[in-house]
Amino acid sequence: MKMDLKVYLEEKRSVIEEALKGVFAEPKGPEADIIASMNYSLLSGGKRLRPILCMAGAEAVGGEGRDVLPVACALELIHTYSLIHDDLPVMDNDDLRRGRPTNHKIFGEAVALLAGDGLLTEAFRLMSGSDATQRVNPNLLLKVIGLVAAAAGYRGMVGGQVVDIQSEGKEVQPSVVAFIHAHKTGALITAAVSSGAILGGGKEAQIEAITRYGENIGLAFQIADDLLDIEGDSEHLGKPVGGDARKKKITYPSVVGLKKAKETQREMVEEAIRALKIFDHKADPLREIAVYIIERKR
Amino acid sequence: MKMDLKVYLEEKRSVIEEALKGVFAEPKGPEADIIASMNYSLLSGGKRLRPILCMAGAEAVGGEGRDVLPVACALELIHTYSLIHDDLPVMDNDDLRRGRPTNHKIFGEAVALLAGDGLLTEAFRLMSGSDATQRVNPNLLLKVIGLVAAAAGYRGMVGGQVVDIQSEGKEVQPSVVAFIHAHKTGALITAAVSSGAILGGGKEAQIEAITRYGENIGLAFQIADDLLDIEGDSEHLGKPVGGDARKKKITYPSVVGLKKAKETQREMVEEAIRALKIFDHKADPLREIAVYIIERKR
Repeated sequence: MKMDLKVYLEEKRSVIEEALKGVFAEPKGPEADIIASMNYSLLSGGKRLRPILCMAGAEAVGGEGRDVLPVACALELIHTYSLIHDDLPVMDNDDLRRGRPTNHKIFGEAVALLAGDGLLTEAFRLMSGSDATQRVNPNLLLKVIGLVAAAAGYRGMVGGQVVDIQSEGKEVQPSVVAFIHAHKTGALITAAVSSGAILGGGKEAQIEAITRYGENIGLAFQIADDLLDIEGDSEHLGKPVGGDARKKKITYPSVVGLKKAKETQREMVEEAIRALKIFDHKADPLREIAVYIIERKR
Repeated sequence: MKMDLKVYLEEKRSVIEEALKGVFAEPKGPEADIIASMNYSLLSGGKRLRPILCMAGAEAVGGEGRDVLPVACALELIHTYSLIHDDLPVMDNDDLRRGRPTNHKIFGEAVALLAGDGLLTEAFRLMSGSDATQRVNPNLLLKVIGLVAAAAGYRGMVGGQVVDIQSEGKEVQPSVVAFIHAHKTGALITAAVSSGAILGGGKEAQIEAITRYGENIGLAFQIADDLLDIEGDSEHLGKPVGGDARKKKITYPSVVGLKKAKETQREMVEEAIRALKIFDHKADPLREIAVYIIERKR
């Protein structure tokens, strides 16, 4: 029987939303503003793709999704920090995100900057110490902390953002857009699903296969994002379409054309699913998510 | 025989400088700019107080300073990131730091912002994974990662920075300046010496005593910084004096007066040294550093 992805995603999202609500205390005292600012962006109804992938990665290798929940939440904190910093005037200067004013529009640039810093830092506290995490082998946890840090830092997401900004308005080779996508978006998505597989007790070959899956869906995800910015519906997206073109952003479609971009994302989804051939039905959610990633409306 | 603090600090600094130089690879390829930007601020000749305290904390409980070197370096990465973000126009808008243009003056605001993000993230990778660290018990390492993250994040340094910014130009109670100091500066200094004691294998009572020491020197350090900004020599400091008053920064002397501020820092150094009474000569560097902290010229 084919699984129902919609039900699966809803179940996972509800567990993750509940956990994310509990990350920070009620805003009060001197920390009230920073907590309010962090929660404003963290609890704004994202897709929660990275935490879901982390949990699905653990389940694919026979682990329990709930055991990796702190790491899954940490990945969403890191993703959220990157969006807040990305939206700042010195970066992309965006006013809208998920249909609401961006963080600095509400809290001011200084608090938004610090809210990003606070989310990134708290992500590592979450990974190091919560009760649920401590059911996991500490050496695996250290390995995952290192993997996530590498994926989020200058070797990964931050490195991709630098090249992204520096490439705006320039003519670039397809290899540069591939670098930006693999680093800016792909690295953290790959780390999400791989860290789930590691903490879930996956064997070396399983972790390798899931990493290959992650690399492919990471790129497919970013191409899909680029395509949504061209062909999507601003109501579903919660922001105006065409922003990439206005900002002269380097995107896959702008470099290789619409047709080739669509072909590439489909090939990557197929490659991702092929990478999972060593797994049984427990990897079905990962298989379905790969397809969902390029068919989603936001 | 009384130890020679100058020799001790020089020896430690030289080990730390060497290790810090090795954190990032030679700047090349797409990551060249972000590496150059991170290294520009990381290798600009700071006092290296936090790494030294971490190593001295380990030695006080009978551990090896070299075993905690990756964590010691990570603390300096976190300190450096906080300075880069603090200097940005949306925060303190400073042009000079340690006698050189601030990071964003050289690399631009976007790259400086990302360099801070990259340093913070890399700090956690360093703590999780280097060879030297792995001689340490993984559970202790996870404890230290959690401790450092709490000290650096919204419960600590980031929380202090928010209140600091929001208090500029306002009349505040002494309790507010104490909150800012304890969080903005004290928390990471305390985490530095405590994490050394934890990783060095300290017993509960030893770690508690060293934490009390850290809290006291952390506050004394920030009061000394405030006093240097009033009475210091701009050549030693590498930046103009009087910046706090011009920016209407909340400082200890501005709230309680010069005389009371000087009394308080002396009392805190005495309290810090008293906290170390359970230790033998192996804690002498910590004792000497407590005095150095309020007698330094930069």
